[in-house]
Amino acid sequence: MDILIEQGVLAAKGFRAGTAACGIKLSGNTDVVFIAADQPLTGLAMVGTQNVVCAPSVTRNRAEVSGPNAVDIRGVVINSGCANVATGQQGIDANVEMASVAAQLCGGGVLTASTGVIGVQLTMDKLRKGIVDAWSSSGTTREHDRAAAEGIMTTDIVRKNIAVKVTTDAGTFYIGGISKGSGMIAPNMATMLAFITTDADISSELLQPLLRDIVDRTFNAITVDGDTSTSDQCIVLASGLSGVRISDTDSRLYQEFSDVFEAVMLHLAKAIARDGEGATKLVEIRVTGAPSDADARAVAKTIAESPLVKTALFGNDPNWGRLMAAAGRAGVPFEPGAASASIAGIEVYRAGVPTDFNAAEVSDAMKLQDVLIEVDLGATAGGAFTFYTCDFSYDYVRINAEYTT
Amino acid sequence: MDILIEQGVLAAKGFRAGTAACGIKLSGNTDVVFIAADQPLTGLAMVGTQNVVCAPSVTRNRAEVSGPNAVDIRGVVINSGCANVATGQQGIDANVEMASVAAQLCGGGVLTASTGVIGVQLTMDKLRKGIVDAWSSSGTTREHDRAAAEGIMTTDIVRKNIAVKVTTDAGTFYIGGISKGSGMIAPNMATMLAFITTDADISSELLQPLLRDIVDRTFNAITVDGDTSTSDQCIVLASGLSGVRISDTDSRLYQEFSDVFEAVMLHLAKAIARDGEGATKLVEIRVTGAPSDADARAVAKTIAESPLVKTALFGNDPNWGRLMAAAGRAGVPFEPGAASASIAGIEVYRAGVPTDFNAAEVSDAMKLQDVLIEVDLGATAGGAFTFYTCDFSYDYVRINAEYTT
Repeated sequence: MDILIEQGVLAAKGFRAGTAACGIKLSGNTDVVFIAADQPLTGLAMVGTQNVVCAPSVTRNRAEVSGPNAVDIRGVVINSGCANVATGQQGIDANVEMASVAAQLCGGGVLTASTGVIGVQLTMDKLRKGIVDAWSSSGTTREHDRAAAEGIMTTDIVRKNIAVKVTTDAGTFYIGGISKGSGMIAPNMATMLAFITTDADISSELLQPLLRDIVDRTFNAITVDGDTSTSDQCIVLASGLSGVRISDTDSRLYQEFSDVFEAVMLHLAKAIARDGEGATKLVEIRVTGAPSDADARAVAKTIAESPLVKTALFGNDPNWGRLMAAAGRAGVPFEPGAASASIAGIEVYRAGVPTDFNAAEVSDAMKLQDVLIEVDLGATAGGAFTFYTCDFSYDYVRINAEYTT
Repeated sequence: MDILIEQGVLAAKGFRAGTAACGIKLSGNTDVVFIAADQPLTGLAMVGTQNVVCAPSVTRNRAEVSGPNAVDIRGVVINSGCANVATGQQGIDANVEMASVAAQLCGGGVLTASTGVIGVQLTMDKLRKGIVDAWSSSGTTREHDRAAAEGIMTTDIVRKNIAVKVTTDAGTFYIGGISKGSGMIAPNMATMLAFITTDADISSELLQPLLRDIVDRTFNAITVDGDTSTSDQCIVLASGLSGVRISDTDSRLYQEFSDVFEAVMLHLAKAIARDGEGATKLVEIRVTGAPSDADARAVAKTIAESPLVKTALFGNDPNWGRLMAAAGRAGVPFEPGAASASIAGIEVYRAGVPTDFNAAEVSDAMKLQDVLIEVDLGATAGGAFTFYTCDFSYDYVRINAEYTT
């Protein structure tokens, strides 16, 4: 297994990507990305936001992926700079046209995604030309791969991409992807987008439940500020061109595909948390000893979203009290006298009382870019879950307060 | 009905209060408050934190109020500066002794409350003397009343107190109280305490369910940062000395008592939100048109706790997108096309799209100390709930990050 840190959606065979700057972003940066397979896909999967206020692209993609035209889908076209949310019927029509223009170019159905300002109409005159330009410029080089990762960014600071090459007895296949996260262009909200390609030969019937399962432990296990976008999507395209058939969910090959798929998704998800607005570090919240995995998830999520915990992390304060107080309000029963907690590997709380830890030593250990927080609730059932978050800094407030609509 | 903005727990007849500075607070400020009735109470009620990690005082008070000794309870003794949480058996013993010392002085049972640093043992040598001093100095003047309100503060900026004089056909009675909120002394968490007295003649059997009901719309309808303390408590003492008997829940007198009781609690609760750490304004989130009141509460709470909404409020940004995105992720079904939203009385969102509002005008209106946000979800069932919150400022991050344990 080789990790290809410079590659993304074009590591897998059978895909091309193109980008364009059509003027939706006032900065003149790339604002259209087109990713498509050269041939019909063997498999396709997507998950979208659970928010009731939902982008036209998410609604349409859900219908397309579960409908009769799913077999014709070849790719996805993304615009950044305008979310096309809260735009009424005109926005729905624009989204349909965006897909239609792209479909005529690539010869198959196309999914859509939009990220950026909400409540503003897409300027279709610009976007039509942008989609055509993106297709015309499309290719398969490292530069095309990198440009796709950069083109979906809004106010992300770093591009987010990864690919993995997997060598098996049945042959070699690739899984790779790109993601974007915490971009804020008011009035809007953080939108998480991820696009993953593979040249493994896997069907939609296998891929869709696998994606939904892994999303719970990856993209749904990160938080920047607890808010859920109207436009979150993760889309997976399988070309099958490696010739490696993933068919039996009991097989070693399926397990290998599943493991690498999860590793790619976890990397892309953690990259979003690490690049959270104003974040100075990635924090892993590992909860064990819960009555069930679902209980562990509830506790980990509550800790990960606690502003008191997140400001303490920014301040490198080994504040076990805030950890245990957050754990205690998660709605999960546990015996505080049986619980323990560690920060950066140093135990700070045991059997209902703080340990005799060296606060300066723990504070120093918290200054790293990756901080591990472990909370064990002491239940023999041993339910476990890991959540990823970032700290809460002055810059978070600055970024989100200083823009005036 | 007269609102007495300078009075608190001593407006009602039959109560005395005393304070002392025993050295638990390193600043030398008042850290012991003793509030007690001169005679047996006619009624008593309390609600405590739902946090699994819970202070010994909350656990003991719950048992006392529901146990056979409840009829003997006369008052409450409070120390600030040390929360006596996560202190093991020694902390439980200290809490029992604190109550015992106070009980010997006032001639009846005493409830306890502690707020401040957690994970640190109470220094009983200091506290014993502090309780004796507080009792010795106790009295019924305006100065005693004010000192009680100030003595329970930790890092609260303003003292929080109110009393109401109610004139009825059956006579005159008083309800008054004090509260404290967002004090943070790391490692700890915000603790909400409230103590309310009345000289109405009301029984515990009427008072306890009434308190629990009203708490849901007052102290449980405020949020500073979504965190729940280990030590939250609201305690109500009724002396009966006004001679005004509140006996029949169907009577006009009961309704009048109930209305004033709720007004006092709402005032004390809103004062906590307004004085939230770093807060520059009080924000009222009024949700209507929900499938049920419980649904309206879920939506209002999600909006009130959203860091994106709260930073926009700090920045006076009329960010309707963040409001609707928060509403959409609250787990309550609604039709975005039927929803509307107003900020400071100006409609900003209607029928799925933003209105043509003047952003500068709305932003100016948001610069007041009280900002009203209204969200109507459009359901004919008309479920409604109001939540109170504050904005999220640089100072919130500073206060909670800069202390290093």
